[in-house]
Amino acid sequence: MSFKLDPQIEADSIFVCDGPLSQIRLHKNAAFPWLMLMPRQNDLREIIDLAVADQETLLREVRLVAETVKDIYNPTKLNIANLGNVVAQLHVHIIARFSSDPCWPGPVWGGNASAEYTAEELEETVQKIKQSLEQKGL
Amino acid sequence: MSFKLDPQIEADSIFVCDGPLSQIRLHKNAAFPWLMLMPRQNDLREIIDLAVADQETLLREVRLVAETVKDIYNPTKLNIANLGNVVAQLHVHIIARFSSDPCWPGPVWGGNASAEYTAEELEETVQKIKQSLEQKGL
Repeated sequence: MSFKLDPQIEADSIFVCDGPLSQIRLHKNAAFPWLMLMPRQNDLREIIDLAVADQETLLREVRLVAETVKDIYNPTKLNIANLGNVVAQLHVHIIARFSSDPCWPGPVWGGNASAEYTAEELEETVQKIKQSLEQKGL
Repeated sequence: MSFKLDPQIEADSIFVCDGPLSQIRLHKNAAFPWLMLMPRQNDLREIIDLAVADQETLLREVRLVAETVKDIYNPTKLNIANLGNVVAQLHVHIIARFSSDPCWPGPVWGGNASAEYTAEELEETVQKIKQSLEQKGL
């Protein structure tokens, strides 16, 4: 069965690229540089539902996305998290946080901070991230 | 230089055991079954500051703690996260979340939900978690 992306995640984010395990997407909320990784397996909820070898692949993908976000944005702190209380499909957030951002130092989830990319900004951001990930071998 | 635990983390949590890389502690907030892993290296802030081999060890520790929390509490969802916006020292949260808990479906951080274990409950909880981790080979 082909991989089905959760409709809420699909609506909230835009495709960047596919890693060996996960689909990598950029959240459309421009208030934070915000990437999401979804392992391309159906009916996954927890990281520990993945086979151990897949958990290790996910770790590598998380590492390369985190390094890319750090390189491009130089944030105060990275937030890396799997919550999944609202959307059940397994997804890992990698978010660049700044001491100047509208939710700092609180979490971004459940906050009301949102901003829109222009179509140009969205495309540029996706390309920049994609190129950096390719350079890192993803 | 010996490992120094952040004083806030020390005040908020109680020692469970040391894994190969991380100190594992139970958060004293009884509103949520809540474990924390702190790699025993000083001046760490990000997971990607760890050497790749240490990231893999951390993943194994996270997996075993997550499996333990799932086995003991059977939560609606595990929340696994490194935020570190408030306390800089690298720490990974593993929290059992329930659709009946006081912050559901929001994140626990920044919420006001708290409850206290009795001294007995705290000791029993630590022992139960420690035994389960030992059985899993940690």
